[in-house]
Amino acid sequence: MERITARYYIETPYAVEKAAAVLAGEQSSGTFVAVPGETEELKNRFAARVELIELLETVSEPAIPGASSPDGQYRRAHVEVSWSVENFGHNLPMLVSTLQGNLYEITQFTGLKLLDIHFPETYASHYRGPRFGIGGCRSLTGVDSGRPLIGTIIKPSVGLTPAQTAETVGILAQAGIDFVKDDELMASTANSLFEERVDAVMQVINRHADRTGKKVMYAFNISDEMDEMLRKYEHIVRSGGTCAMISINSTGLAAAKRICDIGELAIHGHRNGWGMLNRHPLLGIEFPAYQKLWRLAGVDQLHVNGIRNKFWESDDSVVRSIASCLHHAPLDKPVLPVVSSGQWGGQAFETYRRTQTTNLLYMAGGGIMAHPGGPAAGVTALQQAWEAAVGGLTLAEAARDYPEFGKSVEKFGQLHFDRA
Amino acid sequence: MERITARYYIETPYAVEKAAAVLAGEQSSGTFVAVPGETEELKNRFAARVELIELLETVSEPAIPGASSPDGQYRRAHVEVSWSVENFGHNLPMLVSTLQGNLYEITQFTGLKLLDIHFPETYASHYRGPRFGIGGCRSLTGVDSGRPLIGTIIKPSVGLTPAQTAETVGILAQAGIDFVKDDELMASTANSLFEERVDAVMQVINRHADRTGKKVMYAFNISDEMDEMLRKYEHIVRSGGTCAMISINSTGLAAAKRICDIGELAIHGHRNGWGMLNRHPLLGIEFPAYQKLWRLAGVDQLHVNGIRNKFWESDDSVVRSIASCLHHAPLDKPVLPVVSSGQWGGQAFETYRRTQTTNLLYMAGGGIMAHPGGPAAGVTALQQAWEAAVGGLTLAEAARDYPEFGKSVEKFGQLHFDRA
Repeated sequence: MERITARYYIETPYAVEKAAAVLAGEQSSGTFVAVPGETEELKNRFAARVELIELLETVSEPAIPGASSPDGQYRRAHVEVSWSVENFGHNLPMLVSTLQGNLYEITQFTGLKLLDIHFPETYASHYRGPRFGIGGCRSLTGVDSGRPLIGTIIKPSVGLTPAQTAETVGILAQAGIDFVKDDELMASTANSLFEERVDAVMQVINRHADRTGKKVMYAFNISDEMDEMLRKYEHIVRSGGTCAMISINSTGLAAAKRICDIGELAIHGHRNGWGMLNRHPLLGIEFPAYQKLWRLAGVDQLHVNGIRNKFWESDDSVVRSIASCLHHAPLDKPVLPVVSSGQWGGQAFETYRRTQTTNLLYMAGGGIMAHPGGPAAGVTALQQAWEAAVGGLTLAEAARDYPEFGKSVEKFGQLHFDRA
Repeated sequence: MERITARYYIETPYAVEKAAAVLAGEQSSGTFVAVPGETEELKNRFAARVELIELLETVSEPAIPGASSPDGQYRRAHVEVSWSVENFGHNLPMLVSTLQGNLYEITQFTGLKLLDIHFPETYASHYRGPRFGIGGCRSLTGVDSGRPLIGTIIKPSVGLTPAQTAETVGILAQAGIDFVKDDELMASTANSLFEERVDAVMQVINRHADRTGKKVMYAFNISDEMDEMLRKYEHIVRSGGTCAMISINSTGLAAAKRICDIGELAIHGHRNGWGMLNRHPLLGIEFPAYQKLWRLAGVDQLHVNGIRNKFWESDDSVVRSIASCLHHAPLDKPVLPVVSSGQWGGQAFETYRRTQTTNLLYMAGGGIMAHPGGPAAGVTALQQAWEAAVGGLTLAEAARDYPEFGKSVEKFGQLHFDRA
């Protein structure tokens, strides 16, 4: 029978073998005492198995609260545990409860982070995965593989009317933008009801598409309760839209998959709340595991933060996240990495140098909307930055050769200037 | 316009006022540079407001990774921030993205935990909340207010067949149990398909109810993708069941609320995965805030761990969680606290002493199923423990006066013996 294997980074005050055995017991057939009915046959079929232990460093202070160490030492290790698919079947929420459930409560750990998940091909192939993915998003926006999709976020995040939003979209469309999104804080506000915003924005986008043949992809934020999301989704479809955005942590896995399953719109997965799940080095989940779950659920685009972002995440971590989205497993259907947070084009050089890919949705919010020449010049500057980065120019050379990008450097360069 | 206020415990390398202003900006109208359209009128209407700052201790090491402190000091504080309801309306996922979204990413914090949420009455009253709650669960099981509902978890967690599960339920029903549940790792396994388990178990429960007038409440674990959950829910209703269980973190808020909205079954909310959201003292969310969100969503029963549990959580924290479930706000509809994890009756005394309530669903898994006299004696022992605790007896007195409870003490007492 096929098995799913999870890799954890753990810390324990006890022997690593014992702590791993507690994890495997708690997350399959165990309770705190042996009970009748727990036969050898049952254990062989359903018990979780510790497949691998790699000892790492030992420290003298626990990473998070838990049992005290009898010898004052806290042992770190990589541990792999497997479960038979028979335990949960093709049920992603149950998979999550098995791999990420009560094990975070176990006192025998003073640190536990899910690093990665291995899915057998036969298991993953049960899922459609991203309906559109990278190729589909490129063809919906008419952007060939030579450059990233260039996108922006409507700012101010909250407060513009539908007419103001639509007017901004018109300017951006005119400037050749590929993608625009609602902010994750913007769904349906008192002065911008969802349907009114969709209608106003899609009128502009459809008119632009009729005239030019290019349809800007707008990710309308449908994050809401279940029936409301379905209703909002249908409204986008009826209006000729191509994308819906979901705050995946806030809506949750079952509702998000229900939306992805429809398959008429590309789904923009926003990971706000991610810091809660990931920021501590020894608690929660790492992005390679996280993106696999959401890829199986069918999200087409997924946020990965950006190089020299305004948040706490390191560039190394962002580069690893991008690589994991583009990796073939599971399903051989990559999810389009959404690069954003404090981006303005200056980071295109380092992003390309480190990832060597243009399979990105490269987002700038303030970086476009606050360009000294206005939003249209902001879009042009981003396109120039990527053309220059892919062409092998340095940031300084690009600033000299491309006037709009040069103006970006003057305005934003002191914030993040790349001297390399 | 009414406002929702969130209380955070934060740590920052900078002045607390500045960090709080960054949070308020990031979570409402802000981006990293000022943009056109961010008018004073818009800010007044939609900007988050810092309502209160209470300075706490200063430390020399950051709790979680973030910006380095210029002076080597990391300042802790309680901070309250409010948002106008106009920003998100009655949309719980959007409320979560606003109160628990990208703020966990902000580099100006080296710790951030959501402690509590204040909802204006007019806002909360938009939600039905728990359809059954404490009173409804009591009347469905025929347990009056003098004692907790006594429940158990089918163990081994995974691996029993429907017939074996039903047989166990029959023994427990005979013994006078009020409530039985699937383990959170058990939904539909290769040898216990959901429908077959419901049919086998409900046949036993319905027969017992016909004979005795008492219907045991069984929480079938419907955690799954959206349509499957709806299908499973309907199967329980058709079979005469009274309760469904959801792993709320794994399925997520939108899907869980959709299930609660139906209102034909009591919803047992299992919080597995909670440790990931709560275990670090300066990251994530505290239970008082968490239970309010799930209470608004309509969960009837919610896990709170137990006194001297097998996990890492302290008794003080468990007592606080129970109090928050029973507190009148929001909605004046409490959620029934589910006490579980390593419970066997010995903890009834301390639980009652510290909470002074019997409004609990008191769960023992191994504590019932592994009783030396069998599961029926296990149920009797738990009822005796609560009778004794409410009657003012000590554990030792109860062990002397009640034979089945006395046997529990012999078997489990060395694990958790209460010398007080």
